[in-house]
This record gives sequence, C-alpha cells and structure tokens, in this order.
Amino acid sequence: MPDMDFSPPLATLRRDGDSVVILDQTVLPHRREFRRLSTLEKAADAIREMQVRGAPLIGVTAAYGVALALAGRADDTRLRQSIDILAATRPTAVNLQWALTRMQRLLHDIPESERRQAAWAEAEAIHSSDVQTCAAIGGHGLQMLATLAGGHNGPLRVMTHCNAGWLATLGAGTALAPVYAAHGQNLPVQVWVSETRPRNQGLLTAWELREAGVAHSLLADNAAGILMARGEVDVVITGADRIAANGDTANKVGTYLKALAARDNGVPFYIAAPLSTIDFSCPGGDAIPIEDRGASEIRTMEGLDEQGAPCRLRLAPNGTRAINPAFDVTPARLITGFITEYGICPPDGLSLLPRTSNQ
Amino acid sequence: MPDMDFSPPLATLRRDGDSVVILDQTVLPHRREFRRLSTLEKAADAIREMQVRGAPLIGVTAAYGVALALAGRADDTRLRQSIDILAATRPTAVNLQWALTRMQRLLHDIPESERRQAAWAEAEAIHSSDVQTCAAIGGHGLQMLATLAGGHNGPLRVMTHCNAGWLATLGAGTALAPVYAAHGQNLPVQVWVSETRPRNQGLLTAWELREAGVAHSLLADNAAGILMARGEVDVVITGADRIAANGDTANKVGTYLKALAARDNGVPFYIAAPLSTIDFSCPGGDAIPIEDRGASEIRTMEGLDEQGAPCRLRLAPNGTRAINPAFDVTPARLITGFITEYGICPPDGLSLLPRTSNQ
Repeated sequence: MPDMDFSPPLATLRRDGDSVVILDQTVLPHRREFRRLSTLEKAADAIREMQVRGAPLIGVTAAYGVALALAGRADDTRLRQSIDILAATRPTAVNLQWALTRMQRLLHDIPESERRQAAWAEAEAIHSSDVQTCAAIGGHGLQMLATLAGGHNGPLRVMTHCNAGWLATLGAGTALAPVYAAHGQNLPVQVWVSETRPRNQGLLTAWELREAGVAHSLLADNAAGILMARGEVDVVITGADRIAANGDTANKVGTYLKALAARDNGVPFYIAAPLSTIDFSCPGGDAIPIEDRGASEIRTMEGLDEQGAPCRLRLAPNGTRAINPAFDVTPARLITGFITEYGICPPDGLSLLPRTSNQ
Repeated sequence: MPDMDFSPPLATLRRDGDSVVILDQTVLPHRREFRRLSTLEKAADAIREMQVRGAPLIGVTAAYGVALALAGRADDTRLRQSIDILAATRPTAVNLQWALTRMQRLLHDIPESERRQAAWAEAEAIHSSDVQTCAAIGGHGLQMLATLAGGHNGPLRVMTHCNAGWLATLGAGTALAPVYAAHGQNLPVQVWVSETRPRNQGLLTAWELREAGVAHSLLADNAAGILMARGEVDVVITGADRIAANGDTANKVGTYLKALAARDNGVPFYIAAPLSTIDFSCPGGDAIPIEDRGASEIRTMEGLDEQGAPCRLRLAPNGTRAINPAFDVTPARLITGFITEYGICPPDGLSLLPRTSNQ
C-alpha cells in the first residue's frame, strides 16, 4: 500500500502541557481561532457547542477531558462524574462512549496516585491511533477509487455530506481520507460538497479542501438528486456517527436522502469510519438515539456579513415551530460498503471485523 | 363538492388601471412591500428576479406583461418582441409559455387598434381562471385528504416543498389548496415546511400558513427522510413547474429527494398543478430545460439581522465554485397522482385529460 502520510494544514487538537488547544470550528471558515481547554467543563462545553465536532475528534476530545478532570481529585467518584458529564454532551456519536469506556476501564484498575498521568497517556494513545486509522481508511478507500477511475474520463467525482475530513479527526479524516490519498497519488478527484443545513458543515469541507488544494464545488443539499440523475457523481462517501451491528448507519441528517438517490441512479454509496464507530451492542438503526438540536438552529443562521462583521440572520419569527433532528439513519440495504481501517466490507461483513476490548 | 372559496390575506397581484401592483416576494417574510409594474421591462424583471414566483403566478404576470407592452405600439413586431422578452425570463415553468402562447394566438387575429384592450381582458380572464383552478384543485385534494384522515388519530401531517400556496398563484395555491380546503372544513391538518435552500421559499410557506392560521413546523430540507422513516408524514404534496406527457415532473430542486423518501417509506406523493403546467409536447423529464441560477445564491444568503436591518451573509469566498440547478425532475414512477382542476389521476392517466386550445 502506498504511503498515506497526510499532514493536516492545522492541528484540530493538540496537547500543550496540562491543557489541550483546539481549533474552534464554530467560527470557521471565517476566522482561525484556537481555544485552550484546561478543565473538564471547558472540554464538555467544546463538544456540546460543536467547537470540536466529527465523531473521531469528539472521542479524542472526551478522552483528554477525562485527563483534565483528574487535575485535582482522581478518586473513583471524580472519575465516574467526569465520564458521566462528558458522555451526556452529545448522544449520537458512539466514538464518544467508546473512548470514555476505554478510559474508564483502564483507569479503574490504576491506583489514584497514578491515574492522572495514565489518563494523559491513554488519551494520547487514542489520539495517535486515530491518525493511523485515518491513514489506513485512506489507503483502502484509494484502492476503491482507483478501481472506479479505471477507464474513466476526467477527474473522479466524489460526493460527500457534512464534514468528515481532517477537521473531523486527528488525521486525514474518514470520508475524505480516500480523497486526500488519491490527490496525493495524482489520481484526479473532484468533490461535490453539500451545504449540510442547518449547521452548514459543508462550508467547513469546502474550506479544508481548499486548504489542501483539492478541487471542489458547493451545492445546496437539495441538488444531490439531480446531479446523480445527470450522471455527474461517480461515488458517494460519507462518514458515520454510529453504525449498528446490522450495518444501519446514523450520520448527519440528509445522508439517508443521498443514499436513496445513489441507489436510484446506480451510484455506489460508501460509509468511511473507524471500527470505534461500530456499536456492536446496537442491533439496528431503530435503537440509535437521534439528537434533536432545537428550533433556534432552524430559525436563525450565523455567519459574517460582507464586511466581515458577525451577523445573525433571522430566518423565521421566534414563535415559529421547527424540528431539528441532527442525524438520520441510512438502512444497511442502501450501503455498498464500509471503508474501515481493516479494509472494505459489505454490511453483512461487519460481524467478521475484529473488536476492540471494549466493544 | 363543498364551497372552496378562499380569500388570500393579501393580493399577490392586482390590476390597477393601466398598471399592475405586485407583492414583492423577495423581501418577504420580513417586509410587506408592493411594486407597481407599468412597463414590459418591469414585468420581465419582476419574473426574472423572483419578485413574483410560482408557476401559475408567473404565467399570469407574463399575460399582464403583454398588455403593458402594448401601451404604445401594438403592431405584430411589438407583440412578438414582448412575448420573446417575457418567454426568456425563466426557462422551466411552462405556465409562462402557456400564457404567452394563449395571448399571442388571441391577439394575432385582432386588429391593432383593439389589441391593447383585448390584451388586458385576456390577462384578466387568465387571472380569474387561475382563482377557479386553485379552488377546484383544493376541492379534489380535500377528498383525498379526507380519505387519508379516515380513522387517523390527530391532525393529518402534510409535507410540502418550496412554496405552492396562495403566494404562488392568484387563488388558494396548488399544493396548499387542499390544505386550506381541509382547514376551512375543520379537518385538522399540520404542514411540514421544508426550508427549500438555496432561496428559502419554505419561509414564504411558513409565513403564508401563519397568515392563514394553519399549524405548521419548519425543517431543514435534509430532515425530510428521517421524518418519513419515523412515520411522521401522512402525505407529501408539492406543486410543479412543468409536467412532461409521461408524468415526469420538474419542480423546485429537492422534490425528487422527497419523492424517493416517500416511496421508500410508503408515503403517498402527489403533485398538485393546473392543466396549464402539463407540457404535452414534452415526452419525458430528460427534455425539460433546467434553469441554473448561478453560484452567488449558494455563496451568499440575504435576509434581515435580529435588529431588522438588511444583511447578506457570506457563506463561502467569492472564488468558490458552486452549482445551482433550480429544479429537479421527479420520475413519474414515484408519483402517486396528479391533483388537477379536473380531478386526481395517476401518471398514466394524464393523456386522458382535456387539453386547452394551445396545448
């Protein structure tokens, strides 16, 4: 397999002594601001308010959050409390639970006096492992893209949804790792970037692709169907927030609509995610909790005006009712394959994948 | 059939002497401003810039545009020129062509000295006919809703897309006419209103439903799939911009995705449109021209800030590439039925409908 080394243009998160510095994604793509997380509360807020986002990055941030929580007391009560607080920040991404379970199992068996140092070391191990996982996903995805590109005229046109690139991880991303791998190997690719209302994470995807020099075009989420019907999409790759044991996959709301359009037009549809996103204890999509983020994200929209000043548009009056599920579930039957760090497998092959000790 | 009289809370368009006054939909729902159209050019601009929008309202505005054009000269050249200018304003909605063909056929055979008066009379006839058509669509749609409501607990939940209500017509609307008819008959209904990026016509729908006192909730376009999967949608009704002879239907971009989700979840999917939206000369969806409205609608978003001042958000840098097809095509196989002024028919029944003299 070719060397998949990818250096993110900016660090989404880095340890700095006894604190952690994150890139604040709520002000991207307009401003580059970093925030220092020095307490459990700041780490929990950063996840809840989506200053960090993307399932893998949420998991790593939570692991560091445990280390931050143990700065003072490191007894069982404090450990349990910190894990409960972090676990409650966002309900859908299972990487959060996975990382916290890993921290809890390790630290529970370690004497209090050594817990703090062990927590930092374990968070760093999860961090490094994510970088390697992204590289492996990129390598396996590249092989799939190279096969699709055989005999293809012009760049391979990859559609994605939301942001599952380097901004969502500690490495090259999940859904975009194969794209960066292809770009690094001079396989021409062009990315269709869906706006991803209501939080517009597609604008983050456009920004990170530009930073990395990859060709891309924005579209309204509504335009995904006509682009596929016109034959302008060669493959769809998205990330995932939780994959049930049967392959049903929760990801950013709107993913299901893209999967339906892909199926209707014979376009292959892949989910790229690390093993830690699979919830083997969850039998199917119906059992995945779906976060509702409230009406205000639908009634207003924040950004910068043309002079660069912060501006909040009022889209609908305060009293207007709105529903805002942040995720939807794509049934396994619509998924061509899962690109994991162990290779690409169809939905009914998930059960054959190795499990980590806490899965 | 019950009395379907519906009085729009505001006139979307009215004749005032030798000019026409329109409600400017580009500043709704934030401000109520009316514009006076006194020339052909103003009428063409109003259609092109979407101050008036919605296939039926576009058709009526164009008919009045011909009358405005004949204020000075009324010879064949001027008639031809005015029709060409109006026909070029927007390519997808066939009601525009239909109304212009009707004007042209009538006026061509009338002496120049009588053309101006005849043009105003014909535009008013098209105007009145649209009011009646909306009422008939409402009546037929109500019967369908009443059947669905049989044995149903709670309000009937109708999902729509874009705006095809009283704002899009001269009467009660197309897709929303059955909703207003149900509301008028005390059949409980609740409307799921999709935002409809990139121009957010869903906000117009929310506004007009509020003005008419009908319960509704906003959602991001991306959330349509999960709502249907959860069983929270009883029926989908949208309008149309052009219906091909085989039933393939062009409507606001994103309609196709809703139709796919409806089919995947066993939710009936209806198109409500007047006969004038059927293009019998167009064999199928591939032959329907799809307007591309350019990248700026994707890169920026206009509205009012929280203090009520006009604000334009910059969503992506100027150089960002974007694609913006304004419509998509829903294949006939995904459509349960067409609600027309003559009743409800399945896609393969379109050919049995009566045709107007210029179809």
